[in-house]
Amino acid sequence: MTETCADALRPHELAVEPPDRFDAQLWFIGRIYTPWTRRGDCPRRGDAQNGPECRIVLDERWAAGLTGIGKHDHLQILYWMDRARRDLVLQNPAFGDSATGTFALRSPVRPNPVASSIVRLLAVEGPVLAVRGLDCLDGTPLIDIKAEFGAVP
Amino acid sequence: MTETCADALRPHELAVEPPDRFDAQLWFIGRIYTPWTRRGDCPRRGDAQNGPECRIVLDERWAAGLTGIGKHDHLQILYWMDRARRDLVLQNPAFGDSATGTFALRSPVRPNPVASSIVRLLAVEGPVLAVRGLDCLDGTPLIDIKAEFGAVP
Repeated sequence: MTETCADALRPHELAVEPPDRFDAQLWFIGRIYTPWTRRGDCPRRGDAQNGPECRIVLDERWAAGLTGIGKHDHLQILYWMDRARRDLVLQNPAFGDSATGTFALRSPVRPNPVASSIVRLLAVEGPVLAVRGLDCLDGTPLIDIKAEFGAVP
Repeated sequence: MTETCADALRPHELAVEPPDRFDAQLWFIGRIYTPWTRRGDCPRRGDAQNGPECRIVLDERWAAGLTGIGKHDHLQILYWMDRARRDLVLQNPAFGDSATGTFALRSPVRPNPVASSIVRLLAVEGPVLAVRGLDCLDGTPLIDIKAEFGAVP
């Protein structure tokens, strides 16, 4: 897995020296399958109403954790944006006249590249969920699935 | 840091053998300060309108990443629920007659204990954010801050 990559800095962007050790660890618990195989093809944000149907495939080890999931119309999905560099604090995604702080954006480029989307649940079949509302590359590692009770897009 | 703890299983709960290696790593980028020092005192979910004011303190290393954050009314906060066991797939939080799948809950007990809340931003002072809407223990490790553009509670 590539933790960082050598994407060049754009004007006004700022990188920092990363910490010398990590503090916590994640398991990938499954994979997400979408229509997008190149970063530039991914939508800026998923559309839970009209986006294409995507599949979330949970590893068999965790499959019993889906018990009762079918009663939820919406779920929150966390996933790992493993292609992005992690050391930028100022970003200029549109090559503009100034940069914006990483935490004022939702870009995959961030210290901990955990992405979050609210999806609409269409169907459950064993360890596979069919959903709408994702925005990530085909094959993206899955980190978590949570019931979503809040207001939804 | 305690990755798992020896909380006993309740009726109908099910634990699985965890994977033998982790797949990705996180940095703690700051700390969250709340009024709650015992797990039982934390609300089940934060209240971005009427909850108590909490503070998010970002490590100085990442502070430039807050540039432009003040224009957002709401933020998504990711944090690490480091007191919970990570191997349960069926949970019975209320000691009921049956258990529910981990992914149909928002409990801190999950394979990757990354919690997510939408908060209202009250003030920014250097690397410190004042917010409402958190639900976690005082001193909880911060993983991410994201601009929130979606529907909010």
